Amino acid sequence: MKLRERVGLNVRNLRSSRGLSQEQLALAADVDRSYISEIELAKNSASIDVLERIALALEIDPQELLNKRG
Amino acid sequence: MKLRERVGLNVRNLRSSRGLSQEQLALAADVDRSYISEIELAKNSASIDVLERIALALEIDPQELLNKRG
Repeated sequence: MKLRERVGLNVRNLRSSRGLSQEQLALAADVDRSYISEIELAKNSASIDVLERIALALEIDPQELLNKRG
Repeated sequence: MKLRERVGLNVRNLRSSRGLSQEQLALAADVDRSYISEIELAKNSASIDVLERIALALEIDPQELLNKRG
């Protein structure tokens, strides 16, 4: 599995487990809703700065976004 | 400490501990030497795909690049 796929699954799972929509996460992380969608579907290669903002919005350490369990 | 600073320190420490120059790591990861330097100095926000290539070149799991210990 490519790293961007791993990150996409983690973002989706962590977001869903918090009951957040893509739009809500996008607002909290200050990125476009479509960008969250693309990250979850592994359609783009997010930057460290964006991962940091997503982790902050999800209240997790950024390292969790790279966890191997999907 | 911003995430890109954490990543920069980890790349530098892991690279040095393997006795690799920036140029050698750049070659192995298929990126420009200047790009490795910028990542180490936290001057840019590397993408997931680049982190994956650097981790592969360093023979580590990409998650290690986000470790909190510098």
